[in-house]
Amino acid sequence: MFRILLVFSLLAVTRTQTSTYFYPGVPTAEPISGKYTGVYRPRVHFSPPANFMNDPSGLFRDKDGVFHLYYQYNPTQTVAGNQHWGHATSKDLYHWQNQKIALWPPTKSTYVYTGSAVLDVNNTSGFFPGQDNGVVAIYTLAAYENGTGGTQDQNIAYSRDGGYTFEAYKGNPIINVNSTNFRDPKVLWHTETGKWVMVVSFSADFIIGIYTSLDLKNWTHASNFSHHGLVGMAYECPNLIEMPMEGDDRTMWVLQISVNPGAPLGGSVSQYFVGNFNGTHFIPVDGVTRLTDFSKDNYAGQFFYGIPATEKQISFGWASNWQYTDLVPTGNTEGWRSQMSVPRYQYLANVTAIGYNMFSAPYNIQSIFSQELAYNKSFGNGTILIDYSTVASGALYVEANVTGLTASTLQGMINMTFISSVSGEFVAVGSPLDSDTWVNRGHTYAFENPYFTNKFSTAAQYSGDGTWSVAAIIDHSILEVFLNGGQHAATTTFYAKHSLDNLRIDTSGMYSNVSVSIGVWALEDAWAMEANSNGTVVGNVTHI
Amino acid sequence: MFRILLVFSLLAVTRTQTSTYFYPGVPTAEPISGKYTGVYRPRVHFSPPANFMNDPSGLFRDKDGVFHLYYQYNPTQTVAGNQHWGHATSKDLYHWQNQKIALWPPTKSTYVYTGSAVLDVNNTSGFFPGQDNGVVAIYTLAAYENGTGGTQDQNIAYSRDGGYTFEAYKGNPIINVNSTNFRDPKVLWHTETGKWVMVVSFSADFIIGIYTSLDLKNWTHASNFSHHGLVGMAYECPNLIEMPMEGDDRTMWVLQISVNPGAPLGGSVSQYFVGNFNGTHFIPVDGVTRLTDFSKDNYAGQFFYGIPATEKQISFGWASNWQYTDLVPTGNTEGWRSQMSVPRYQYLANVTAIGYNMFSAPYNIQSIFSQELAYNKSFGNGTILIDYSTVASGALYVEANVTGLTASTLQGMINMTFISSVSGEFVAVGSPLDSDTWVNRGHTYAFENPYFTNKFSTAAQYSGDGTWSVAAIIDHSILEVFLNGGQHAATTTFYAKHSLDNLRIDTSGMYSNVSVSIGVWALEDAWAMEANSNGTVVGNVTHI
Repeated sequence: MFRILLVFSLLAVTRTQTSTYFYPGVPTAEPISGKYTGVYRPRVHFSPPANFMNDPSGLFRDKDGVFHLYYQYNPTQTVAGNQHWGHATSKDLYHWQNQKIALWPPTKSTYVYTGSAVLDVNNTSGFFPGQDNGVVAIYTLAAYENGTGGTQDQNIAYSRDGGYTFEAYKGNPIINVNSTNFRDPKVLWHTETGKWVMVVSFSADFIIGIYTSLDLKNWTHASNFSHHGLVGMAYECPNLIEMPMEGDDRTMWVLQISVNPGAPLGGSVSQYFVGNFNGTHFIPVDGVTRLTDFSKDNYAGQFFYGIPATEKQISFGWASNWQYTDLVPTGNTEGWRSQMSVPRYQYLANVTAIGYNMFSAPYNIQSIFSQELAYNKSFGNGTILIDYSTVASGALYVEANVTGLTASTLQGMINMTFISSVSGEFVAVGSPLDSDTWVNRGHTYAFENPYFTNKFSTAAQYSGDGTWSVAAIIDHSILEVFLNGGQHAATTTFYAKHSLDNLRIDTSGMYSNVSVSIGVWALEDAWAMEANSNGTVVGNVTHI
Repeated sequence: MFRILLVFSLLAVTRTQTSTYFYPGVPTAEPISGKYTGVYRPRVHFSPPANFMNDPSGLFRDKDGVFHLYYQYNPTQTVAGNQHWGHATSKDLYHWQNQKIALWPPTKSTYVYTGSAVLDVNNTSGFFPGQDNGVVAIYTLAAYENGTGGTQDQNIAYSRDGGYTFEAYKGNPIINVNSTNFRDPKVLWHTETGKWVMVVSFSADFIIGIYTSLDLKNWTHASNFSHHGLVGMAYECPNLIEMPMEGDDRTMWVLQISVNPGAPLGGSVSQYFVGNFNGTHFIPVDGVTRLTDFSKDNYAGQFFYGIPATEKQISFGWASNWQYTDLVPTGNTEGWRSQMSVPRYQYLANVTAIGYNMFSAPYNIQSIFSQELAYNKSFGNGTILIDYSTVASGALYVEANVTGLTASTLQGMINMTFISSVSGEFVAVGSPLDSDTWVNRGHTYAFENPYFTNKFSTAAQYSGDGTWSVAAIIDHSILEVFLNGGQHAATTTFYAKHSLDNLRIDTSGMYSNVSVSIGVWALEDAWAMEANSNGTVVGNVTHI
């Protein structure tokens, strides 16, 4: 979950979980409040009420359909450190109620690192007599003394109130191998073998350990998946997830591994392998290294627990990069840093020659459309200019769809440019149908950093089905692009000195016998709906 | 070897090799001449005398130690197309004698694509009675009709004069599978089985075919290596090569595969797999995808034939990217496009946790030092400013070495900035010892393109041996960076409006008990030595 430390002599700290340490000044009985306003603050993306967030940690959907998002959280600073689990809930993954901090460290010199959460409906753990809504969080505790990392081991805590408050298991740690690089447990229920399965990273050794358990307390090592794909300097945040294969009645398994630092684009990247899982061993179908994103701000993605494997799975990625996440201007100007991606619908489909491809599309984005700004189903070649400065949220969804294509008419270009009418700063997407699709954030000027790369691109396969599509979500300081329904996706943060408030769409070079539809929708100001009369989002101050 | 064409209905052309087609205006009996001057033209890198070059194609070292560099060549335009094999020879890989074009297409509608060359010392082919210096070129012929690609098949030609002139084998093609995406044969001699081995790409299927032969004419399919690592949209330019493992008496095998388009950084990238080869099958030691470069201008690398496996191998990469190679400003202003990397010494070594790593270091760069501009073996923290505007070549080699490090003193920063005194444009390298090393070309302004990314970075493992080093070669429009002796390397083209002529080196944050040495050397104007009194490099006009 965390930036690798180039520390070669580490403390071997024996932790004693005598109590929970509450950081001075942080409210324990209610959520932290915050303002979801300003030039950079996203309005339809999740960001913490204040201070620093990183990895999604413990996503689950409860039996009432409520989504619980926990996240790595430093409640006292706008940089990483002091890790807790923040918490928020939502019915639709766009409108959030901030909850009080869910997991606190047991001592001052311990961090609560990334992990996962499961519903223990059958009370396998014994924590939940008479309940079918017990929640168990599985997470890493990391010792820190004077800024030096110590042992990382795996722990659990249980919640009898549906995920709002947790109590640490007295028998913690549940797995301790005396390692300083052992973290990010993600647990699933494996129906066929009737066991819990954990994937967890031996991060500096490029090994994903697979463990099994009957009760979430006692774990048996089953296998290792090691040295696959890009390795960078560390493996982090593994996810093992079963998902549907489009056009097939099969499901397949995906093992997703995040790598940081040392990604090809610099810093943080997530890759995935497609394969089969028998309850103890993951066997990939091929040796291909597939990346989740073609930009550089999507890391540590986590899938929700509790979505049946035959349904499209849902995930969040952390929309930032360890190379610059502690430095972006949102911290000094607005008091928060980092946001999640929009929720992603994820499933596998076959792509010509490449084989399995995990699609990543925005989850039910139509549910937050507030206004149609433009819609033309037979646009052809041309230009649209839209002044969206009056859109309350400042956030848009834009979609261009080309239909009626054949191999010989696979030409033309779709451009979307989001511009500041004040400064001329812009971010842009370009999608030539016969070449590489690109994203450019290099013409925004509020942030300069040696690792803040300006341009990203990908090459997508034309599926042969006559269509080509580009969709974009822009939300103050984040742009997400979805190519061909999510065949490829890009998550890109940007920092303009002045708000982008004009959109220009250009289509050119299309054959006259293809159809081009263009749609632009304003998105709801989802966070404003949660704010009080002072404009402050106080979250769930009455719960428990 | 070539940009993928998104063409779904291709001509199936039956080629007849009735004659060789000589393009109008291109000299057949002597080399093409060119001027190796100007703002962009490199002085110690290989670039073609005029017009467009891409992949190295048929590198070998002859028994007299002369290196032969053939290359994909369009002799009539500054963009890709009309592919021939250009040719140059060198005794040291820096000073080149341009030779006349080596391979011409058999017909107007055929391109001679990428391939390789071998020395048939035992006359296995029968082409060379009474000779032990026979050269066989193995290459793809690609049919083109009205800009549409047709069949690609494998062919050979033989040279009885040591590689200067070739005659096509009458029995061509030697392998034809009626594919439009089948190219880039690289051949080696496998001593243990006493056979020739070819690796060749079924590019759109992500398959490297392995074939064997006793005579270079008749080939048997032995195995396929498919769907490994990054796939992008096509596999190209495979190399299978045996090389030493540092600190070990073993050799190991490397299978290098280039991918274009669809690299993580956009466009073109080369990756490699380390493993064992038994004469028919390549088995990787692990599932790791290793990249040859952390910038985006090193593609289609090829290793020289004729270097014993126990010696460090030598390769050239094509220092460009298909995303913008046809557009860079050298074409319109100076009449040429594309250069090779500096020759690279390549060998395997163990890197902590990651395992095998192919090092890539400049080959014998000291041999072209012309002048020491600065050398300080106990520099510590500080700044050096060097005006190198009077260096005839405009090319430098710069090295910073930190020694005496321990894990707890692994801190500090090395910066090298190459600046135009006229415009302030610059390119820069930054290497923090405890974080990611970066390269920035984003402050040069003669070229703008949606794919011309500004910043690159990598994370290198500290080896524990007390050292950290950064070396850079700058040569007009190309910067190459070598981290820790070539553990990681970056090849970066750039285009400044005005020549960079000042160097600033900054070191900071180093502990006082570590040593920092800085050295800066001017490099020879290697091409000027080949020029006549008019400043024109005419090449070998008298040979044959």
